[in-house]
Amino acid sequence: MGVNSLINRRQPPGPKDPISGEIYAKRDSNQGMLSLMPEQYPTVLEHHLDACKISCDIPVVVCGMAGAATGWLEAPYRPISEKLIDLAAYSVRVPSTTRCVSIIPGLKQCVPADVMRGEETQLLGLIAEDPGFTGIVCLPGTHTKWVKLDKGTVKSFTTCMSGELFALLSTQSVLKTSLNSDRWDNNAFENAVLELSKDPGKLATSLFGLRASDLLNGHQPQSAKARLSGLLIGYELMSMKHYWEQGNVRLVGDPSLCKRYQAALFIHKIQSTVENAEALTLKGLTLSFQRIQEHTYGA
Amino acid sequence: MGVNSLINRRQPPGPKDPISGEIYAKRDSNQGMLSLMPEQYPTVLEHHLDACKISCDIPVVVCGMAGAATGWLEAPYRPISEKLIDLAAYSVRVPSTTRCVSIIPGLKQCVPADVMRGEETQLLGLIAEDPGFTGIVCLPGTHTKWVKLDKGTVKSFTTCMSGELFALLSTQSVLKTSLNSDRWDNNAFENAVLELSKDPGKLATSLFGLRASDLLNGHQPQSAKARLSGLLIGYELMSMKHYWEQGNVRLVGDPSLCKRYQAALFIHKIQSTVENAEALTLKGLTLSFQRIQEHTYGA
Repeated sequence: MGVNSLINRRQPPGPKDPISGEIYAKRDSNQGMLSLMPEQYPTVLEHHLDACKISCDIPVVVCGMAGAATGWLEAPYRPISEKLIDLAAYSVRVPSTTRCVSIIPGLKQCVPADVMRGEETQLLGLIAEDPGFTGIVCLPGTHTKWVKLDKGTVKSFTTCMSGELFALLSTQSVLKTSLNSDRWDNNAFENAVLELSKDPGKLATSLFGLRASDLLNGHQPQSAKARLSGLLIGYELMSMKHYWEQGNVRLVGDPSLCKRYQAALFIHKIQSTVENAEALTLKGLTLSFQRIQEHTYGA
Repeated sequence: MGVNSLINRRQPPGPKDPISGEIYAKRDSNQGMLSLMPEQYPTVLEHHLDACKISCDIPVVVCGMAGAATGWLEAPYRPISEKLIDLAAYSVRVPSTTRCVSIIPGLKQCVPADVMRGEETQLLGLIAEDPGFTGIVCLPGTHTKWVKLDKGTVKSFTTCMSGELFALLSTQSVLKTSLNSDRWDNNAFENAVLELSKDPGKLATSLFGLRASDLLNGHQPQSAKARLSGLLIGYELMSMKHYWEQGNVRLVGDPSLCKRYQAALFIHKIQSTVENAEALTLKGLTLSFQRIQEHTYGA
């Protein structure tokens, strides 16, 4: 999803209705930072809102890459020491649109350097029911985030690029013809995670084997694809052990990808729970909207 | 170089001249397996030979990906137990060309599955002066090969994709805008190798930091590019320790890439020597040609 904007309520909302957090309508689009110029965002947003019959006096709250320097309008990163609920107070108002559009900032960590945009809103949604939550959240995706939360505030986080590496190796590398399957061999995935748990160096020496095995032993793309995923996630887990070793990991992201992380953690005897990522995003956006209203009108 | 064909002698060679191994002419081209259909190879080869004034009765010996199933004509892999000098006896003769063209097979290892094409000819060149050579050869490249030679025969080998990963991450990933430099920061390279020597899991947690550091601390592409190379080669070395830990590694490949591997090995206190890869290829092709002549004519 490019522009993350969920619209609440079952009836077309009016500008002064109290916010309930229910979904009135939903639209998905792959239009986002990678394909849009800043001046194109208003037209694209209005196109989708118009299709949902949302009148132009209804405000919009946006999180994610629209707030990047190369997105719609930069919403400068806030330090991780900021309380998640306070981020919305630093949201930027897009000028020169008739509609009120606010973009929520991401978080930055100075040492080691790391950044997130979008995940902070899901984290806000996660702690809505438990504002003092202390524990580990893993948000699998193209750039998986591992986050230590301490009493509802981000203590530290680390981004791993396993998702982007999987995409590059599957579609752009010498391995691509050996991985062209929509099927999935779960045993191959779990065996790879297990191998990496015993030897974290094995990623370097196992990748080309996917191609060589195809050439010498015959084409088994569903196994090769699952094995590649297991090698990458298995290596990531070995690198992130200092995050998950105390257990009780909350997983937030695409459900099928979260299930893979859950299975991989279970090989390390670690329990985890898969959260409803869309519900958390909506909850985070709802809380952010309330905070923006308070900040703007002192309500 | 797509079709690896070096032409010997300082004078235009005649078909019955004894082979000296000297270079008469040299041409480079990026035309190869990735861009040519099988039927295009003869025309491309003749174009280059014609430019060098090589008459059509002069035989040609080819090694590398032209012998792949998706290349010009498949020269089936031979098992690693085969003596390197005997590979040429299994070369395939290209039919339907007026010129005599022989393609040398690559090597296959069944467990763990691995393959090479082209490197076997460089290895043959390497052992020309010392047919009983026992030791480690590293051939850095897109797919770096680590080879254990035992008395002139390949005992085992492992392919690492660090070179292709470097290319994909530098040109196709979220990191690309942070790495766009032709300059090189050797300290950043060596520090990354050192970091990986202490923690082989650090590759997973350090890649996205190249982008985040660019966003938060300013653009230093020569450092980021060298650091990426150091992270990848540093991780590869940790995975391949069972090959190099006894020292005395021979490096065969692009000279500047070999120098990086040499510097990285030196951080682990391992001595290595950089060989002249082109000279080894020529030597290997020369020996292969002699072997093909013996095999064909019993000379």
